[in-house]
Amino acid sequence: MPYVNIRITREGATPEQKAELIAGVTELLQRVLAKNPATTVVNIDELDFENWGIGGLPVLDYRAAQAAKEPDR
Amino acid sequence: MPYVNIRITREGATPEQKAELIAGVTELLQRVLAKNPATTVVNIDELDFENWGIGGLPVLDYRAAQAAKEPDR
Amino acid sequence: MPYVNIRITREGATPEQKAELIAGVTELLQRVLAKNPATTVVNIDELDFENWGIGGLPVLDYRAAQAAKEPDR
Amino acid sequence: MPYVNIRITREGATPEQKAELIAGVTELLQRVLAKNPATTVVNIDELDFENWGIGGLPVLDYRAAQAAKEPDR
Amino acid sequence: MPYVNIRITREGATPEQKAELIAGVTELLQRVLAKNPATTVVNIDELDFENWGIGGLPVLDYRAAQAAKEPDR
Amino acid sequence: MPYVNIRITREGATPEQKAELIAGVTELLQRVLAKNPATTVVNIDELDFENWGIGGLPVLDYRAAQAAKEPDR
Repeated sequence: MPYVNIRITREGATPEQKAELIAGVTELLQRVLAKNPATTVVNIDELDFENWGIGGLPVLDYRAAQAAKEPDR
Repeated sequence: MPYVNIRITREGATPEQKAELIAGVTELLQRVLAKNPATTVVNIDELDFENWGIGGLPVLDYRAAQAAKEPDR
Repeated sequence: MPYVNIRITREGATPEQKAELIAGVTELLQRVLAKNPATTVVNIDELDFENWGIGGLPVLDYRAAQAAKEPDR
Repeated sequence: MPYVNIRITREGATPEQKAELIAGVTELLQRVLAKNPATTVVNIDELDFENWGIGGLPVLDYRAAQAAKEPDR
Repeated sequence: MPYVNIRITREGATPEQKAELIAGVTELLQRVLAKNPATTVVNIDELDFENWGIGGLPVLDYRAAQAAKEPDR
Repeated sequence: MPYVNIRITREGATPEQKAELIAGVTELLQRVLAKNPATTVVNIDELDFENWGIGGLPVLDYRAAQAAKEPDR
């Protein structure tokens, strides 16, 4: 009966991809901890870029800064 | 001074119903634990169907599967 | 299939009181939104006083400040 | 590597203000607890007024009630 | 840069099992959504039985009720 | 009336440091968004090392891997 909250930036995850996440994490909990899939709840939250911060910056600024630092990747 | 987060699928809860949830859970915490309603915070999150998983499936697929299994309910 | 997270300070809520919260909020969601109690999940988190802030203060300091301001209550 | 979730009502916070929140809380955690800003994640959730309750009321009703009680503030 | 919160009842998950959950869900997000594992954060919360409700009951009461209803499983 | 949840690893944050976090984030929200400190709630969650994952690893394994990669820092 686990509860899983997956939070990602909103950038085009499709319903099929979300279904894969739901199936995948539910199977993971069943395989590793024998949790009952019937009562495993998964919530996916999608946040706008400006609402997600990492490294002290909104995520798009962070990505731009990373790209500037590592031009070859 | 409790904090309550209620998460539901987005399927038409009205402002009046949400007000009932807010009032109801605040009263419950006051009645059971003598919590001060003045500082009880309630947050309601509504998630799109494709973002809610149960039984390893997105909720609409889950409901369809349940309906197929239990045709008489 | 709602998910409810109730967060309170850890100050002696008994198993019976917690059971009342679980039953109460599950019934509330069934009554107001016709949510299925069978798949309603409730999580109660109890936080130590020093981990709960309100009014810019840890909760025990906040309560002391409130008591000092309002001696008659 | 802290994770911070800031939840506010949706009422016009600008991208610049959100960037200030992200920078500010990341710096706070670095200054107070020496947490590495590079792996500090901040999530801002904005909730519609009807989804935020305080004092047993949706927030706009709460504000109206407060304004009625305290006309001079 | 996803954030994942896995909540389970506290009933003996080992450090090795938790490491499997962390690795598994991080890989899942990389495989399905190409999320960078380096900045994927996973938080596991373990709750005491009396703090977890399902079907309107604390989880141990729920399990006892399920066992009574379905003696053959 | 914001709600802020700060999640960190449990590694000795003192009550004084937590009070600084509570005061600091409450002031930040007042300064940036004019949020009322009186109804700003802050919750600090401290997680055991084995319950915190980053980069696909429990945090202590992650730190060991980082230290091995970057011996001079």
